[in-house]
Amino acid sequence: MPQTPPNLITETIDAWPSLSAGERERAFRRLKRDGREALFLGLSSKEQAELLLTMPEHERFTYLRVLPPDDAADIIQEAHEPERGGLFALLDDKTQNEVSALLAYAEDDAGGLMSPRFARLRPDMTVDQSISYLRLQGRQMETIYYGYVLDSDQVLLGVVSLRGLFTAPGGATVADVMNSEIISVTDETDQEEVARQFAARGLSAIPVLDSDGKMKGIVTLDDIVDVVQEEATEDIQKIGGMEALDGPYLETGFWLMVRKRAGWLAALFLGEMLTATAMSRYEEEISRAVVLAVFIPLIISSGGNSGSQASTLIVRAMALSEVRPRDWWRVARREVVSGLMLGSVLAAIGFARILIWQAVAHTYGEHYLLIAATVAFSLVGVVMFGTLAGSMLPFVLRRAGLDPASASAPFVATLVDVTGLVIYFTVAHMILSGSLL
Amino acid sequence: MPQTPPNLITETIDAWPSLSAGERERAFRRLKRDGREALFLGLSSKEQAELLLTMPEHERFTYLRVLPPDDAADIIQEAHEPERGGLFALLDDKTQNEVSALLAYAEDDAGGLMSPRFARLRPDMTVDQSISYLRLQGRQMETIYYGYVLDSDQVLLGVVSLRGLFTAPGGATVADVMNSEIISVTDETDQEEVARQFAARGLSAIPVLDSDGKMKGIVTLDDIVDVVQEEATEDIQKIGGMEALDGPYLETGFWLMVRKRAGWLAALFLGEMLTATAMSRYEEEISRAVVLAVFIPLIISSGGNSGSQASTLIVRAMALSEVRPRDWWRVARREVVSGLMLGSVLAAIGFARILIWQAVAHTYGEHYLLIAATVAFSLVGVVMFGTLAGSMLPFVLRRAGLDPASASAPFVATLVDVTGLVIYFTVAHMILSGSLL
Repeated sequence: MPQTPPNLITETIDAWPSLSAGERERAFRRLKRDGREALFLGLSSKEQAELLLTMPEHERFTYLRVLPPDDAADIIQEAHEPERGGLFALLDDKTQNEVSALLAYAEDDAGGLMSPRFARLRPDMTVDQSISYLRLQGRQMETIYYGYVLDSDQVLLGVVSLRGLFTAPGGATVADVMNSEIISVTDETDQEEVARQFAARGLSAIPVLDSDGKMKGIVTLDDIVDVVQEEATEDIQKIGGMEALDGPYLETGFWLMVRKRAGWLAALFLGEMLTATAMSRYEEEISRAVVLAVFIPLIISSGGNSGSQASTLIVRAMALSEVRPRDWWRVARREVVSGLMLGSVLAAIGFARILIWQAVAHTYGEHYLLIAATVAFSLVGVVMFGTLAGSMLPFVLRRAGLDPASASAPFVATLVDVTGLVIYFTVAHMILSGSLL
Repeated sequence: MPQTPPNLITETIDAWPSLSAGERERAFRRLKRDGREALFLGLSSKEQAELLLTMPEHERFTYLRVLPPDDAADIIQEAHEPERGGLFALLDDKTQNEVSALLAYAEDDAGGLMSPRFARLRPDMTVDQSISYLRLQGRQMETIYYGYVLDSDQVLLGVVSLRGLFTAPGGATVADVMNSEIISVTDETDQEEVARQFAARGLSAIPVLDSDGKMKGIVTLDDIVDVVQEEATEDIQKIGGMEALDGPYLETGFWLMVRKRAGWLAALFLGEMLTATAMSRYEEEISRAVVLAVFIPLIISSGGNSGSQASTLIVRAMALSEVRPRDWWRVARREVVSGLMLGSVLAAIGFARILIWQAVAHTYGEHYLLIAATVAFSLVGVVMFGTLAGSMLPFVLRRAGLDPASASAPFVATLVDVTGLVIYFTVAHMILSGSLL
């Protein structure tokens, strides 16, 4: 069989996400048969689906059949409606049954991630029998490195690793050597929770049970790396103030992307309109002391920046279960003090800046000290409020049953801008009444 | 041996990150011996190090010895200087040698992740000999599911999976059945790149070679899940506008956290001061038409929001290699058009809002149409600029050898605020000269 140089395969897989459709086709044709198969197995389900659909029917067949049923199900899920039936028909009977069962599960649940091809053992088999069985059935299993011990009702009794079998006496029974402290998930467990179980326990496979305790399949660690990346991407896009794209940037259709961004942007814009309403109320103050307008962007952006730091920290800590809902009070106390510190740092810089400008260019007139004090006190207030609001918003969203990651930097900034204006003009009234105002 | 109920172990591991030191000690004591060991193995290196240091010397010994050398090295790395020597001394001689070798590598490189305990095979062994060898040596290996075929100089010739050995004829030689298309990394490969290799290839272990091609160890998939989480957390915190914390939120010392946030916040504040300088230049315009001040927060925040969407998208796409440096021109064209669309949406909303307010409350006087046009055209300009600047900043940072994730939402907003003011007042001059200005 002709061999493709391994580094050519490597380079092609690496470059794949950034290639256009035409470039992909050429890159694929450049590989020998073995390289094409390696490339195909290295792609994401979405890329696999796209690549399959560029092939003639007889070629699709070859590639689709190298996949285990969970990966085949993912491809069929990624394909558009008119193509699905055609792809499904290419599978052999056994795989068709398995794939239909898998397609019934939501894509983001353990049921949608699992493979039904795991190694089934009976409790009364001997260790040597089990090893021979795994050796015989190995080719068809998702992993042969774990055997799952089931009773006649398919209820999971215990798990034994191939490593455990290897190091046990050959005549012992599976029941003797299996581990009956089972860590499992149900077919409806969310994939984020499944990923957390893998990370916390250092597992390499986890059994999936239905509500009666019957074993349905296994999720393996290699599926989880993708889940972790995918969930982090979703959170990052939400933190950036938009809906999650659900696909690579360059592959997402232009209009879909604009729609996903326009929704949040328009919502934020509507919220931000409150600043115009607030500003209208202060028009008189501004016309009396135009110098006040000069510091508006500086002050409200400081609130937004400190708020987005705080919300990002808490959103991520929640996603990793480092912070739980009941920690809100602990976080609030901590963030109020942080806000006071951070606000004081900015206040000191702002105060110094006004004194220096005044000394150099006499920009701010006779009341420059009062102006500097107004800016400094406002900064402390705005940053404290921003920090507190940014850190509490994820808790509020979670309490309301929404995704804490929606507490995006822009969302927090918008929330804080209006309050920032109110704080600023209130402080100005207190300090400048009788002089500038 | 007394057994701990499995769900108690599960609950304890889940709750661990949010427990205080005292609560942890009590939770640990509540478990039976087997549960304590399971808990210990389920914790992160940092948590393991902290837990170990609360134990008396003779107990530390027991727990430290259950760990493979790469995990023991991680714990010693996490412990503070005065404790390191004591922990190291508890290891047996063989592990001490391995740990010293591992400690020489940077924590973030493949060398710092790898285990030196992999299964070594010779090319002339038979399949049956190899299986017996793996069966004998299994206990001491990080994984027995891959055998690495080395020549007498420790140069890697090929890889064979236990599954491959199982399904091959017993009398064949390892050289016959091994796969000589090796995917490997060097001991200095960055952990982010190692994670990318795992994700792209669906690997479960990868060999680590030194610069002479000699095999030094293996990195296994379970180490990679942690790396992926860690790298995503770092990126998310940078996107939120701060330095990465390098640890769970509630466990990071208060002053360290404030320092990591204050640095960026002060830098952004200094940048944002340019808005005060810009505003000073427009004081005369504002005093002539105070109504212009009313829309300042609305307009600059729209630029910031659209910019942070764009930068977040590109930062994440770069981290996943979906977008490469050479794609900058493609991204720029796409983002200019997106910006035009998004800006037009906001302009339409803003225009309508001013007309409605005018109809209801006569807020904006006789020139309300000109004011509405000023706001609308400024929004298109500001959003286009924000989108373009936000999407190009990650490319610029990467070109300069910096981390693209530093293109945080607050950084982009600051960058865009000054330009937003200039765009707004320039448009105002063009439209309002002769009427309001």
